[in-house]
Amino acid sequence: MRAARYYGKGDIRIENDVEEERCGEGKVRIAPSYVGICGTDLHEFTGGPTFAPLKPHPITKETLPITLGHEFSGVVTEVGPGVNTLQVGQHVVVQPTLYCGTCSACLAGFENVCYKGGFIGLSGSGGGLSDSVVVPAGSVLKLPGKIPLDIGALVEPLSVAWHAISAAHLTQESTVLVLGGGPIGLAVVQCLVALKTHKIILSEVSKSRQRFAREFGAHHVIDPKTNDLVAASKELSGSDGPDVVFDCAGVPASLATACQAVKARGTVVNVAIWEKEVPFQPNMLVFKEAKYTAVLGYQREDFQAVIDHLANGSLKPEKMITSKIRLEDLVEGGIKALINDKESHVKILVEVGGK
Amino acid sequence: MRAARYYGKGDIRIENDVEEERCGEGKVRIAPSYVGICGTDLHEFTGGPTFAPLKPHPITKETLPITLGHEFSGVVTEVGPGVNTLQVGQHVVVQPTLYCGTCSACLAGFENVCYKGGFIGLSGSGGGLSDSVVVPAGSVLKLPGKIPLDIGALVEPLSVAWHAISAAHLTQESTVLVLGGGPIGLAVVQCLVALKTHKIILSEVSKSRQRFAREFGAHHVIDPKTNDLVAASKELSGSDGPDVVFDCAGVPASLATACQAVKARGTVVNVAIWEKEVPFQPNMLVFKEAKYTAVLGYQREDFQAVIDHLANGSLKPEKMITSKIRLEDLVEGGIKALINDKESHVKILVEVGGK
Repeated sequence: MRAARYYGKGDIRIENDVEEERCGEGKVRIAPSYVGICGTDLHEFTGGPTFAPLKPHPITKETLPITLGHEFSGVVTEVGPGVNTLQVGQHVVVQPTLYCGTCSACLAGFENVCYKGGFIGLSGSGGGLSDSVVVPAGSVLKLPGKIPLDIGALVEPLSVAWHAISAAHLTQESTVLVLGGGPIGLAVVQCLVALKTHKIILSEVSKSRQRFAREFGAHHVIDPKTNDLVAASKELSGSDGPDVVFDCAGVPASLATACQAVKARGTVVNVAIWEKEVPFQPNMLVFKEAKYTAVLGYQREDFQAVIDHLANGSLKPEKMITSKIRLEDLVEGGIKALINDKESHVKILVEVGGK
Repeated sequence: MRAARYYGKGDIRIENDVEEERCGEGKVRIAPSYVGICGTDLHEFTGGPTFAPLKPHPITKETLPITLGHEFSGVVTEVGPGVNTLQVGQHVVVQPTLYCGTCSACLAGFENVCYKGGFIGLSGSGGGLSDSVVVPAGSVLKLPGKIPLDIGALVEPLSVAWHAISAAHLTQESTVLVLGGGPIGLAVVQCLVALKTHKIILSEVSKSRQRFAREFGAHHVIDPKTNDLVAASKELSGSDGPDVVFDCAGVPASLATACQAVKARGTVVNVAIWEKEVPFQPNMLVFKEAKYTAVLGYQREDFQAVIDHLANGSLKPEKMITSKIRLEDLVEGGIKALINDKESHVKILVEVGGK
């Protein structure tokens, strides 16, 4: 079968003779339909391997090369022994979290922060960027008929946002500041809109991303290069600042801005992965007793919540899809297009099986 | 009257002719009995003014010099018009928080993070290190007869600890790591003991502070210079780490250790004030979805809780008092003694009125 294989920094190969995995007990075979390209994929290409395993991954036991693709929808093509909840032909999405099930985080129900964890499509166990992938039945969620398969590929990034929001204890009266209008920042805006959040402010320097943010329902879009963002967000909040600030940028300036902008006893939610140490003055939080909360990935209930909100129409992420490409075009038309012109794009989908 | 007046860095004067304030409407005059010397007082002496106002304080309108002393007990000597809850002769402690009552933090009930806030004994409005201080009746809490006045002077630092613990959502089953065995770290240990916390681990390099920590009830005391603190606290927790880590040290190493030690979805509570920016890698929190919470000062209910636990005997802080000095000895026997040999001391009390 075809598969996009990651060999290391700058080296992704579309191979045509990758062996299919057997569909064993409790497993399901899926023909991926659409696969989103994620910032993590870009980081692996430009600076990796980071998530991709150089030594055997504790769960998959695999090392490079691995098959990429962790944001995907598809169609069930085979059901392994003991699987009663799914059937061939079912449209599905895959929650790609890999977890050990035995560490203290897993035992506490926090599989997303499993100490040995990983992701299908990054850590081994196949990936969406292939003609066929075998996954545990428990990783699969049904996609209702009214949700097209291309939208299904957006469930994963929307679930990152949903999970982040669930950590923030928002109410519909909350004022929220989102720092960064990349795919995750825009996903956070959409989930906040779906939750009918009172006031959504987004900060972004790129004009095209500012436009996306407005289209997705941000109430106020501020360019931090030409405005005093902290002052503006305080004024818009009608208080001493936003109740919650989501840092979807992950740079020193966003950390400082988030801590300065948030109200007394407010919450900063970090949704970013950081490349290196940054300067931090904890007093920024101390003098207003603010909280800094970090989130990672998602849990199954986040996926289900996103699917439910897609089904009832309160999430309408169609415009996130700014391009669809073929698997053979992954590197040039996908990875490199995003690296060279990421501001024109929100999400590029790879059409593997289509439909 | 006598008063210890702070004029700036290195300049504290015991003056004998300071004018007494009038005891106006809603106010109470107190003859301070015992006054604790706080780390903040030391910082003002060695590196200030920090809290002490160089320009008129927004609440007190006062500038240097100001009277010091914000940890104190005393006896009511005069009751202003309109005060019905207190009477002359009553033993009391003072909650020294000054707040504006009109900012958004105050309106939300968080007077301790008032945007204009300050402290009696640091920001003007008199202080405990004097023969007489006039304070709002609402700042005064009654000290039950069974609590001696010297113990009353410990209510303030114990309330800092109580407030920090209340931010941590502990249960009696929790495992807690306390970083730093100074007065606040030791106060946190005592409050955790009073709350019957399952496992209390304290990290401290000083041998004398290690001994204090054991005396106050820490179950495990670890020297981080000769032990792998992160590994040891994980092992002692019988899990992937302590549920909560209190950073009472406030140095780069304690920030990193706190984030590394805390369990998945655990909470780091910062109880320190920081001198400057420090390096921080947010991923330390991200990959386990941990929280970093900052606390500042206390609220009235923290003072009341500490008084209640002193009264019922579950807080027994007598051994915190390592020395008692006269007001005239404040600088040499108090401030400088703590600066030069802080490890032998927990709390030096200044005996102003005694009893």
